[in-house]
Amino acid sequence: MTAAHSDFRSWLPGQSAILSAHSRIAPYIHRTPLFTSRLLNEELGSRLYFKCENFQKAGAFKSRGAVNAVFSMAEERLLSGVCTHSSGNHAQALARAAGLRGIPAFIVMPENSPSVKVAAVRSYGGQITFCPPTLPDRERALAKVKAATGSTEIHPYNDPAVITGQATCAREIYEDIPEPPDFVIAPVGGGGLLSGTLASTVIWSSGTKVFGAEPTGANDAWKSLQQGRLIPSENPNTIADGLLTSLGANTWPIIQRFVSGILLAEDVYIIAAMRLMWERLKIIAEPSAVLPLAVLLKSREQGEYSIFRNRSIVLIVSGGNFDPDRIPWKP
Amino acid sequence: MTAAHSDFRSWLPGQSAILSAHSRIAPYIHRTPLFTSRLLNEELGSRLYFKCENFQKAGAFKSRGAVNAVFSMAEERLLSGVCTHSSGNHAQALARAAGLRGIPAFIVMPENSPSVKVAAVRSYGGQITFCPPTLPDRERALAKVKAATGSTEIHPYNDPAVITGQATCAREIYEDIPEPPDFVIAPVGGGGLLSGTLASTVIWSSGTKVFGAEPTGANDAWKSLQQGRLIPSENPNTIADGLLTSLGANTWPIIQRFVSGILLAEDVYIIAAMRLMWERLKIIAEPSAVLPLAVLLKSREQGEYSIFRNRSIVLIVSGGNFDPDRIPWKP
Repeated sequence: MTAAHSDFRSWLPGQSAILSAHSRIAPYIHRTPLFTSRLLNEELGSRLYFKCENFQKAGAFKSRGAVNAVFSMAEERLLSGVCTHSSGNHAQALARAAGLRGIPAFIVMPENSPSVKVAAVRSYGGQITFCPPTLPDRERALAKVKAATGSTEIHPYNDPAVITGQATCAREIYEDIPEPPDFVIAPVGGGGLLSGTLASTVIWSSGTKVFGAEPTGANDAWKSLQQGRLIPSENPNTIADGLLTSLGANTWPIIQRFVSGILLAEDVYIIAAMRLMWERLKIIAEPSAVLPLAVLLKSREQGEYSIFRNRSIVLIVSGGNFDPDRIPWKP
Repeated sequence: MTAAHSDFRSWLPGQSAILSAHSRIAPYIHRTPLFTSRLLNEELGSRLYFKCENFQKAGAFKSRGAVNAVFSMAEERLLSGVCTHSSGNHAQALARAAGLRGIPAFIVMPENSPSVKVAAVRSYGGQITFCPPTLPDRERALAKVKAATGSTEIHPYNDPAVITGQATCAREIYEDIPEPPDFVIAPVGGGGLLSGTLASTVIWSSGTKVFGAEPTGANDAWKSLQQGRLIPSENPNTIADGLLTSLGANTWPIIQRFVSGILLAEDVYIIAAMRLMWERLKIIAEPSAVLPLAVLLKSREQGEYSIFRNRSIVLIVSGGNFDPDRIPWKP
């Protein structure tokens, strides 16, 4: 850590931890490409780089954190396996990581989870326990599973090994990009990806400003930053179903200290961004993954784009697990 | 050319022509990646490599042939520009190529062309003449434009420079793939991509078998091969709107002599292939571009997959220009 943040008293993954994580997970993850589009650059008047974690193993950046957590577990904990509650990409990523290490994964999923997600967790060998779809029910079910199996909980975003794993995404960006970017924008749900991105930026690209991009309908990070304290998500409502969660005790201090701001976008911009990435980049990104482009589209429409004009901007496309039967527009 | 096809009397682009074309177009095209999916490989029991020409400039392999044709034109022809009739990817690719060389492109388009395609041609600087949507009308309108402008017609698939340009796609495949593939499957419409693929295969991977993949509703290449003579397309009917055309005088002899077969698939397999590539690869491919996967899905369903099992297969994903408002399934 440099002098600039030597005053930071909370936990932050450091350079050697992130590099070790990257070596540890390298055999099990993709080094995802940075995509560009001349036409999009012209349309937005900036140099955009899309970090395509939609092409990541199991379809999302979550594989980085899950693999790092599972492969850095103490030997004596391995036999009993790992557990979590998740209806989304972390469930798949953890089931896959556990399978790679040959240990069991116990996944608590709400009983209304889309069957395609249930099937994906099963295809990686995850053992599923269903529960009612409320947070208290999920936590209760997870506590039971933990007690019964002795398995180790791997939290989707608050676990330090998970955050350190997610930091490898920005590490790759700074290695691969042809110019040091002016901005990096990452979606923010629980804050694992954003806090990991901030950790790598502090180390490898301290001149880069990092923004979080959040749905207006799930704006707990924005509110927390405004009020200077962690405010949990309440009745979130957005199509970005991967960003409904609240910040955690380990992600919030990092975000509060290092982020340049949280930008918001309504679902209408999220849908427009999905369509634009489809048309210009020919890629499938899930709603939660297009937030960085959505906030740029909104800022342009509101005449607030000037700070981004003629600058280089990395947009982290966090995942691509998007059911073709759930297209949020009328074809 | 090797002894094995020294008896071939028709025109076939040779090694030095393809290598020159590749150097000529390299500054203006993408070297597109080969994508793989562990899950898809398991599902199909083969090693599949997807050559992603959906990521190509202007969204399709057509940029290769168009750039090669425009950049190998005689100096004295340049001022008058180029022309073609096309409602599809060749129109965009030619307009773009002409723009890159600073010469005019006159594009005859049927008046019922989707507005998104019209806008794309205009965005590349193409000058559009509209005509009624029949082949005679298109040819008449093109003859008029040619007479009025003195421009050089660049045929979408029968022009030797276009075929030579398309051959660079397979050249890249053989350079980039980690194993010599058992099979390459390319969509076939007018046959420019397929004949170019055959030309490169003869030179760089003579042990590889090349198949064409064609919609059952536009099966002129299949019929032609069956009957041993060029049979034009009649009232084709398929969602693969890039594959409605008939083989040409230059593509047909190459295909007849070197192709290992033409495989057919109905629209239902085309739609299934689009969805599968969306779900597993997270990419957008247009209906015409998924024919190689569609024919594999059909052959598996019909119990005829054994020749492909445990083999390495390259599937050429020819383009990604697919309007999100035209999804061919009910979300």
